[in-house]
Amino acid sequence: MNASVAIQTLPEAKNDEELIRIVDEVIAYIKSTGLKCYVGPFETAIEGDYDELMDIVKECQHIAIRAGAPSVLAYIKVDYRPEGDVLSIERKVTKHHI
Amino acid sequence: MNASVAIQTLPEAKNDEELIRIVDEVIAYIKSTGLKCYVGPFETAIEGDYDELMDIVKECQHIAIRAGAPSVLAYIKVDYRPEGDVLSIERKVTKHHI
Amino acid sequence: MNASVAIQTLPEAKNDEELIRIVDEVIAYIKSTGLKCYVGPFETAIEGDYDELMDIVKECQHIAIRAGAPSVLAYIKVDYRPEGDVLSIERKVTKHHI
Amino acid sequence: MNASVAIQTLPEAKNDEELIRIVDEVIAYIKSTGLKCYVGPFETAIEGDYDELMDIVKECQHIAIRAGAPSVLAYIKVDYRPEGDVLSIERKVTKHHI
Repeated sequence: MNASVAIQTLPEAKNDEELIRIVDEVIAYIKSTGLKCYVGPFETAIEGDYDELMDIVKECQHIAIRAGAPSVLAYIKVDYRPEGDVLSIERKVTKHHI
Repeated sequence: MNASVAIQTLPEAKNDEELIRIVDEVIAYIKSTGLKCYVGPFETAIEGDYDELMDIVKECQHIAIRAGAPSVLAYIKVDYRPEGDVLSIERKVTKHHI
Repeated sequence: MNASVAIQTLPEAKNDEELIRIVDEVIAYIKSTGLKCYVGPFETAIEGDYDELMDIVKECQHIAIRAGAPSVLAYIKVDYRPEGDVLSIERKVTKHHI
Repeated sequence: MNASVAIQTLPEAKNDEELIRIVDEVIAYIKSTGLKCYVGPFETAIEGDYDELMDIVKECQHIAIRAGAPSVLAYIKVDYRPEGDVLSIERKVTKHHI
């Protein structure tokens, strides 16, 4: 696992319910990739291969548009270390949730 | 609860172990405020009163410096709605972790 | 100058004109501080003393609300090096705009 | 122009000079695409077609690695409106630099 990314997809929506419905479709798409992910209040983190992750990140906004958003903002973080591993979600989060 | 923030404090550190040690001190400080928070792989979300949250966000970097970092980067997200509630961490995250 | 920050204040607004009007008030406030700043398409960078910068960052969202936004999102970057200087806006940008 | 993005590529580097050298290679790459871009102190904004922009964003980190960084962090903002235009760099920035 040479990379980890986090993405907040923020669709234009008429109200909170519509916003949540669209974001849920994006999260469902991310989970459907089968990669390890971690849903947080502002962003969803995913770990895997850098190129694959960036393709997923790109697709997230298409998903939001297809789900009905006329426009979308996104905020993305990337951690990429081609040789060797980045810090895993497991290592960064688990101890804090016991 | 009129606001929710998320903060990634990124201390300069010699290696991953040192980085984790310093970030853990920042997270311990956030938890010590008693506010509802949610630790994720890239950032920790906190909810409460806007002014109080921004003071906490400011203090996080002082904590990292006092813990030994010569310099620090931070990435912060803010959601503030003075009249009425912002979406809660509970509402945004719980269903995705069942 | 021990710190440099960048802030994107994103007010809830009925349309682009309203959004621009509110963001312009936030930028006018930042310029009124007299600190060196740099307005970009997504964020405004400011350099100065860390504590003062974080107070300005906090105030930006109050400005947006007072200008009429019912709610506001913000995305903030911080670079803080208590002993010694952070890279200046001048050093980071000037050569690229010749 | 249906999209606008901003990217901060943050290579691991031994010192400020090395950091600047690598970031300059990333900026040179962005400029070589011929798209309208705007270099700021923390990030470079680019406007164009969404899919093309996301491919450029992905390549930026490869550039940083090839320029010698053992690892790289990136922070990316996206504004995408498939039907109709997003706010242009020109419209958002020009009046503030007169």
